[in-house]
Amino acid sequence: MSDPVSPQPDSYPVTERNRVRREHERGSYAHADVHAILDATPVCHVGYVIDGAPYVTPTLHWRVGNRVYWHGSAASRFLRAAEGTRVCLTCTLMDGYVMARSAFHHSVNYRSAMVFGTARRLEGGDEITTALRDMVEDLFPGRWDTLRPMTAQELKATAVLWMDIEEASAKTRSGPPGDTAEAEVPVWAGVLPMRTVLDAPQGAPELPPGIELPPGLAALVASGGLR
Amino acid sequence: MSDPVSPQPDSYPVTERNRVRREHERGSYAHADVHAILDATPVCHVGYVIDGAPYVTPTLHWRVGNRVYWHGSAASRFLRAAEGTRVCLTCTLMDGYVMARSAFHHSVNYRSAMVFGTARRLEGGDEITTALRDMVEDLFPGRWDTLRPMTAQELKATAVLWMDIEEASAKTRSGPPGDTAEAEVPVWAGVLPMRTVLDAPQGAPELPPGIELPPGLAALVASGGLR
Ligand SMILES: Cc1cc2nc3c(=O)[nH]c(=O)nc-3n(C[C@H](O)[C@H](O)[C@H](O)COP(=O)(O)OP(=O)(O)OC[C@H]3O[C@@H](n4cnc5c(N)ncnc54)[C@H](O)[C@@H]3O)c2cc1C
Ligand SMILES: Cc1cc2nc3c(=O)[nH]c(=O)nc-3n(C[C@H](O)[C@H](O)[C@H](O)COP(=O)(O)OP(=O)(O)OC[C@H]3O[C@@H](n4cnc5c(N)ncnc54)[C@H](O)[C@@H]3O)c2cc1C
Ligand code: HEM
Ligand code: HEM
Repeated sequence: MSDPVSPQPDSYPVTERNRVRREHERGSYAHADVHAILDATPVCHVGYVIDGAPYVTPTLHWRVGNRVYWHGSAASRFLRAAEGTRVCLTCTLMDGYVMARSAFHHSVNYRSAMVFGTARRLEGGDEITTALRDMVEDLFPGRWDTLRPMTAQELKATAVLWMDIEEASAKTRSGPPGDTAEAEVPVWAGVLPMRTVLDAPQGAPELPPGIELPPGLAALVASGGLR
Repeated sequence: MSDPVSPQPDSYPVTERNRVRREHERGSYAHADVHAILDATPVCHVGYVIDGAPYVTPTLHWRVGNRVYWHGSAASRFLRAAEGTRVCLTCTLMDGYVMARSAFHHSVNYRSAMVFGTARRLEGGDEITTALRDMVEDLFPGRWDTLRPMTAQELKATAVLWMDIEEASAKTRSGPPGDTAEAEVPVWAGVLPMRTVLDAPQGAPELPPGIELPPGLAALVASGGLR
């Protein structure tokens, strides 16, 4: 592994691990670009290694500054295997199909981030409670204080992992197909945009009458975003 | 690694690698369940290992029988590193937020599949052309024959990887929150369903007048699905 290229201020160092080589003009190492993609989706895919073989597990993540967190069972194989090891955490948003005149020039509009570091397990009941509160508030602002408080048993069953982002890259494609030179080929070309939306909320069957959707959740649904 | 449990007909063998332990009642090894999830989304996340460290790369995949395929540049680090090695390919659909009365019982409705095997690179121009045609037709039925034909140079630049699925698991959560016993806690509980939709197509700026969206793509947009 060669020495990292000296980092730009506000950018992650560029190393052999995270240097975007393919379609490199789509790459960025800016903290702001990487963080914006991490924050745009609640789900990530975490890669870890057991006995030399790779595993990719989907999970929810949240970010505080340069630190990314995720949670699960204290007995989880995924969390136990990842703890103390190098992991790659990837977030992906697919924004559209890019339809060209040739098969070769088809593509996808997307935003993705790959972040690298060493996973650690959070220790201490207060620290874990704060992190879980951050998670809930990050997804659903204002909700934590309305909930039945967490029990000691629930806390004990739960592990929170975190990772300081050491290397990272964002990669983004947007806009129409690039094959403008072939416009004479008589086939439709353009973009089929796509997006993930929240549909109408479904109250639990046993929800007592009179309990309305709180304004925070109504606003989330109305915002058209997931977060 | 212990011996695989003898497989059910039409199911993948259950091994130490793919046995669903956490929330195991959400797991399935049935070919039909695994394939339905692979087919429901065009994007997967592939885990592979370089110098002992994990990488997770998002890419498009398609399936023919028990074989899953993906493509990219013949010079891709990802494809070159994966070739001949064990990989884990994961597909995830997030179907909703599950809102409970306690933080602990919050969850997500989802469908995900993790499939395991050894990645191989497809050899032979005809085989590669057929596979890329399968890819295009799988995403956009009827499109291949309308396109400007592929060139020898484009074929040479492209690698297709494939993997026979050796072990696999599906895991699915659906329905309302499970904390029905806590219905007296005065907070809204239920599901915020989510779904990915195609928006109105955007023709390329240089698209000549008179070239309409073909019926196949119009049907795809109208179907509300991505595939
Ligand atoms: C929704 C979606 C669909 C895609 N479909 C395809 C496809 O079908 N075929 C295909 O070839 N590629 C596809 N890509 C792009 C793919 O993720 C890789 O960028 C590409 O395959 C090149 O990989 P590489 O390892 O050879 O690149 P390299 O440039 O050699 O990778 C080196 C480093 O660059 C960074 N990097 C590479 N890719 C990404 C990324 N996507 N996001 C953030 N950082 C990155 C990482 O730090 C990586 O370690 C898709 C991406 C998305 C988001
Ligand atoms: C959108 C989404 C969000 C999620 N968010 C969280 C979260 O925030 N916290 C959390 O703990 N879990 C979350 N999960 C579940 C997570 O993917 C794992 O199932 C869980 O963390 C248990 O992992 P494990 O390795 O300990 O399980 P184990 O049961 O020990 O895993 C053993 C084997 O079971 C199979 N398996 C495990 N998980 C899956 C899966 N998701 N899909 C297919 N096969 C699987 C695999 O073959 C795996 O190798 C989420 C899943 C999805 C799809
Ligand atoms: C529906 C059809 C197709 C779609 C949606 C598609 C999509 C994509 C996407 C999203 C990428 C990643 C680009 C990036 O790194 O930002 C890619 C790369 C690539 N595709 Fe395709 N593709 C399609 C068909 C084809 C076909 C038929 C060929 C070959 C003839 C091909 C050859 C390639 C090559 C060589 C790359 C690598 C580009 C690079 O990394 O330099 N693709 N494709
Ligand atoms: C917004 C809040 C939360 C959401 C959306 C959420 C979501 C999830 C999801 C999707 C899973 C995976 C379940 C599965 O494997 O199918 C999970 C597991 C788990 N969550 Fe949460 N969670 C939240 C908050 C919490 C909190 C606050 C705690 C602790 C108090 C907690 C403890 C756990 C535990 C212990 C598991 C592991 C279950 C198991 O594998 O047996 N979660 N969570």
